[in-house]
Amino acid sequence: MSKEAVRAKFNDVYTLIRDELIEHIKSQGMPPDAVEWFTRNLDYNTPGGKLNRGLSVVDTAKILLGDKFTEEHYKQAAILGWCVELLQAFFLVSDDIMDTSITRRGQPCWYRTPNVGMIAINDAFMLEAAIYHLLKVHFKSQPYYVELLELFHDTTYQTEMGQLIDLITAPEDHVDLNRFSLTKHKLIVQYKTSYYSFYLPVALALHMCGVSSPKAFQTALDILLPLGEYFQIQDDYLDYHAPPEVLGKIGTDILDNKCSWCINKALEIVTPEQRAVLDANYGRKDAECERRVKAVYEQIGLPKIYEQYEAEVTGKIRKLIDGLDENTQGKKAVYISFLSKIEGRTK
Amino acid sequence: MSKEAVRAKFNDVYTLIRDELIEHIKSQGMPPDAVEWFTRNLDYNTPGGKLNRGLSVVDTAKILLGDKFTEEHYKQAAILGWCVELLQAFFLVSDDIMDTSITRRGQPCWYRTPNVGMIAINDAFMLEAAIYHLLKVHFKSQPYYVELLELFHDTTYQTEMGQLIDLITAPEDHVDLNRFSLTKHKLIVQYKTSYYSFYLPVALALHMCGVSSPKAFQTALDILLPLGEYFQIQDDYLDYHAPPEVLGKIGTDILDNKCSWCINKALEIVTPEQRAVLDANYGRKDAECERRVKAVYEQIGLPKIYEQYEAEVTGKIRKLIDGLDENTQGKKAVYISFLSKIEGRTK
Repeated sequence: MSKEAVRAKFNDVYTLIRDELIEHIKSQGMPPDAVEWFTRNLDYNTPGGKLNRGLSVVDTAKILLGDKFTEEHYKQAAILGWCVELLQAFFLVSDDIMDTSITRRGQPCWYRTPNVGMIAINDAFMLEAAIYHLLKVHFKSQPYYVELLELFHDTTYQTEMGQLIDLITAPEDHVDLNRFSLTKHKLIVQYKTSYYSFYLPVALALHMCGVSSPKAFQTALDILLPLGEYFQIQDDYLDYHAPPEVLGKIGTDILDNKCSWCINKALEIVTPEQRAVLDANYGRKDAECERRVKAVYEQIGLPKIYEQYEAEVTGKIRKLIDGLDENTQGKKAVYISFLSKIEGRTK
Repeated sequence: MSKEAVRAKFNDVYTLIRDELIEHIKSQGMPPDAVEWFTRNLDYNTPGGKLNRGLSVVDTAKILLGDKFTEEHYKQAAILGWCVELLQAFFLVSDDIMDTSITRRGQPCWYRTPNVGMIAINDAFMLEAAIYHLLKVHFKSQPYYVELLELFHDTTYQTEMGQLIDLITAPEDHVDLNRFSLTKHKLIVQYKTSYYSFYLPVALALHMCGVSSPKAFQTALDILLPLGEYFQIQDDYLDYHAPPEVLGKIGTDILDNKCSWCINKALEIVTPEQRAVLDANYGRKDAECERRVKAVYEQIGLPKIYEQYEAEVTGKIRKLIDGLDENTQGKKAVYISFLSKIEGRTK
């Protein structure tokens, strides 16, 4: 199947769950204007992203079940995939308010659309609540139902912890590079991104495919947390170094005082003079300041350092995957598939 | 036990769960500033309210178990009670942002305290997430664990639906009394207040006490939804009519364009001339406008109408309670206790 066909099929399941969610709130007696509002909330915020997280539930289940993978399995995995996308939508709608962002996915952020404003906070809550409604409708009879609920609870909590550390470490309006460190960066990435973007989709697929051994879940964590960190470091690096016409957007991490891998790596190795330049110019909403920070990045040879990091981390992850015992720890192909999607990406 | 002693004992359990929550996020490797932040979030927003919702889990369990009620039962019921208070804290922290409120419980709203701002959104999420962590730690081994999770999920979703209808029916900055009606008011109250404030505490206690018959839960709904509506109508009426020195605050429903029972009742019976006065003066941030609305309330004899309503609804609820079969539908004393706490209150 072409990449477009894969997405089209996955989007068909969105239509299904969306209609179910709408029917449910109608059946609860919600008035037409509230039903219409919720429909717009769902449609504006849930589909339309890259769908990597949602699709990786399907991909993982497909690899795990092999020949036994049926259309019924597809539907179940896709519903779980859309639950991950709903969780992501819940985070993005609220993150955009907290970060006072302007656009998301090439259109105005939901809270900035006409008449929405702070109602977006409640809308984010409803996207989260929709997850548990869908799990109840589609998975209540499964022996792993409680595991699904706890997995979503735990992952949500972890992501919120990561968001908290990020928010108090790198507030947009107060630059203090003393708060930054590679250790802090690692912690933020693990909590804010890796658990929900990498571990959650695989853990959901494992449950769905009847895997219950703690060892398989521990292996998933051992491989996917480093993989998630690599993904985010790559993201941070592309924000600084990728040509905007390739990346599809203009990087703003330096302007926005983001706790990026680039600044943290730089802080570790700069001279006192270079550090003074970073202190004076990082996180200022000014193109000239940004240029000065980038000049320091060039002076320390950040591109070279990144290339070395990438070679090293992909080697380490590949070794972890190679060393995996497929009888007790799950299938190598799951993790190879993830790594191949990330390695060498340019956007 | 005196009312103060009852609250002191309940607050001791707060200290317990708070310390557990803090220990847990420490054990996850959260840095000291994040641990400190979360502690302040919990302490600022969770205790300090009237605690009616939380205490009613304990009161209900006590009535249901009678002589069999032990200290261990107390602790379990109190933990569930604090979960309800955490849910309330999650709603209040975020409602205050959505309503641009200034104070809550006599102190600045959390989002208006130094350095917090929109981080309060993530803080609200963490209060919600704490519920599921506590349920996992304390109730995972119970046969009714899934029921507790679903009850919190369903109730949260219902409350958010109620909040949505309220937000789009009565936006603070756009008055349109055509959107109001007693039917809309009833719907908002049921979803935004009754489920989580009245049904949830009793349903939690029922589960905890081993009640599983759907009939008992249906009875709880049949009695507690009207009771919740009565409570809110009383609240709306007190906002308009109670002397501020008794109420402990100055009512602002008219100024704030609130979809209150008072305005909805008035809309039902006013003359076209009085309606014009309401249209021109309701929801304006102006003391003279408020006075004109209150004058219409006086002209139609709203106090008398309220007294009639109260006599009628308490009669109806008392009849529902009297008609309950204690062998299959639960204990009358549970509902009599609720009614007696609400009836005739002046603040």
